[in-house]
Amino acid sequence: MYELKYIQKEIEEFINEKKEYLNLPPDYLYEPIKYILSLGGKRLRPALVLMSYNLFSENIKDALYPAVAFEVFHNFTLLHDDIMDKAEMRRGKMTVHKKWNENIALLSGDAMLILAYKLLAKSKKGDFMQLLDLFSQTAIEVCEGQQYDMDFEERKQVECSEYIKMIRLKTSVLTAACCKAGAILASADKDSTENLYKFGLNLGLAFQLQDDILDVYGDPKIFGKKIGGDITANKKTFMLIKALENANKEQKTKLTKLIEDNKIEKQEKIKQVTAIFNEIGIKEKAEAEKQKYYKKAINALDNVNVLPEKKNHIKQLANDLLNRKN
Amino acid sequence: MYELKYIQKEIEEFINEKKEYLNLPPDYLYEPIKYILSLGGKRLRPALVLMSYNLFSENIKDALYPAVAFEVFHNFTLLHDDIMDKAEMRRGKMTVHKKWNENIALLSGDAMLILAYKLLAKSKKGDFMQLLDLFSQTAIEVCEGQQYDMDFEERKQVECSEYIKMIRLKTSVLTAACCKAGAILASADKDSTENLYKFGLNLGLAFQLQDDILDVYGDPKIFGKKIGGDITANKKTFMLIKALENANKEQKTKLTKLIEDNKIEKQEKIKQVTAIFNEIGIKEKAEAEKQKYYKKAINALDNVNVLPEKKNHIKQLANDLLNRKN
Repeated sequence: MYELKYIQKEIEEFINEKKEYLNLPPDYLYEPIKYILSLGGKRLRPALVLMSYNLFSENIKDALYPAVAFEVFHNFTLLHDDIMDKAEMRRGKMTVHKKWNENIALLSGDAMLILAYKLLAKSKKGDFMQLLDLFSQTAIEVCEGQQYDMDFEERKQVECSEYIKMIRLKTSVLTAACCKAGAILASADKDSTENLYKFGLNLGLAFQLQDDILDVYGDPKIFGKKIGGDITANKKTFMLIKALENANKEQKTKLTKLIEDNKIEKQEKIKQVTAIFNEIGIKEKAEAEKQKYYKKAINALDNVNVLPEKKNHIKQLANDLLNRKN
Repeated sequence: MYELKYIQKEIEEFINEKKEYLNLPPDYLYEPIKYILSLGGKRLRPALVLMSYNLFSENIKDALYPAVAFEVFHNFTLLHDDIMDKAEMRRGKMTVHKKWNENIALLSGDAMLILAYKLLAKSKKGDFMQLLDLFSQTAIEVCEGQQYDMDFEERKQVECSEYIKMIRLKTSVLTAACCKAGAILASADKDSTENLYKFGLNLGLAFQLQDDILDVYGDPKIFGKKIGGDITANKKTFMLIKALENANKEQKTKLTKLIEDNKIEKQEKIKQVTAIFNEIGIKEKAEAEKQKYYKKAINALDNVNVLPEKKNHIKQLANDLLNRKN
């Protein structure tokens, strides 16, 4: 069984090796792809594929192509999401559409999606048609999630259940698919395969809730981004939706006023919104919700038909993710 | 053997039937897809898949899913190209990003590319991995072609050979892949499969040259778009590149001045540029080039190992395409 660090090293080396094949003209198509793939990150999605595969099979190198297909797909979504969100920075560097332009970002994103399919097609293990169906179904669901996210920006009110549905589609189906892909590649039994999907799905939900919590309660010294970014952007995160749901009349009036106030100074807004969150006990509610999904995830993992000790590394990963500070 | 009209009817019915499955939320993701698929067009690409398949096999219904995958892919490229070109109209209707907005167009385009792969995966005939490789390789080449096209807009001079390379990638590899896909689906022999690729490739080149010719010399009453659109947009088409290549000193100076003149009235510009084209005999040169590719196409088709009479319909299609007036 391989540790996360070893697996991440393998992924990084593989990506660097494959990037050589992207030294192709036209430069404006391939340079942005190499650039975004170089920005690093946790490589969480391919790591999940490989750790899941590793539950059943020793030679993780056999699953590198499809694993990295998921990473390339994920980076494609980041590239296009950044255009849609007009984001200027990604992992501390300029976003592709800022560094080049929107047309180049759009087209190189398209090429990345195709490239992801090309990498997937190089998979030599498991039932390929099942893997391909999983990949495409997940990809379309991620698009649905992104559209819901954009829809919610235009809406005044979003229900908590709608929010959970949105993050399930936008984020969690992909981590779920990665875990399931590992099982498919290893030709695991059907029950284990479905349980790994459930594990990844609930892990993804818990992961996103941790994101929402960190935005408000993260340690500015450790958290990579600015604290309160979601608050100043009026993003309808779990924190805000749950706060509005649980606020008394006075708190609700105050919170609504703060959201609609375009003139208030950013730090003041963050301070005041956080104060209301504290009164309502939103951090605890979000933590409880996160724990609920975490438990579901671990429960599903426990039902995967391999010896418990084989699950230590992937369990550790899940644990680290939910206690992460950045 | 089926006629084009019958095949087009089959395609249209199939698309209409499958559109029912796109009555899904979120509306802003799926409505644009249904919209662009409803705008019609010649359905040339799926028709080529089916006519090529029909050379070897009677039951064309068996190839409808992959055939329509190519149509959906083609419409995805139109959707994203229209964003990049800031085009307002497509087939006489508003483009998706005009009717909705750019973010919706971007994301629904992404979904269409994934949908194309989903349709392809429903193929039940031939060597699927060969089909998938062809599809992805072609898709990435189309992206390369689009990037070259954008690169050329920024350049002062483009060589004729560069232009041909660009249209080969942007347009012709797709018609080539459609013809080859038909052969793969029918499990045709390797020689025929490669000859059908060559047929489609040269047909695509001739098709694009006919496009360039029609922009200048089309009949305004029959041609769907405005005559001279490429001239007023200073597009580096075969006509302009070849004219600059063949112009004498005086003609070259005049032509260069006209290109750089931003103040000249549109109709006047078209008139003057066309006059120089006429002097140089550009129409004849373009027609000769078109005929060169057409002959290569027919030659490749002649080498496909089926009875000559089976090729009548697809030969007729090639002929009609190159003599089309719109």
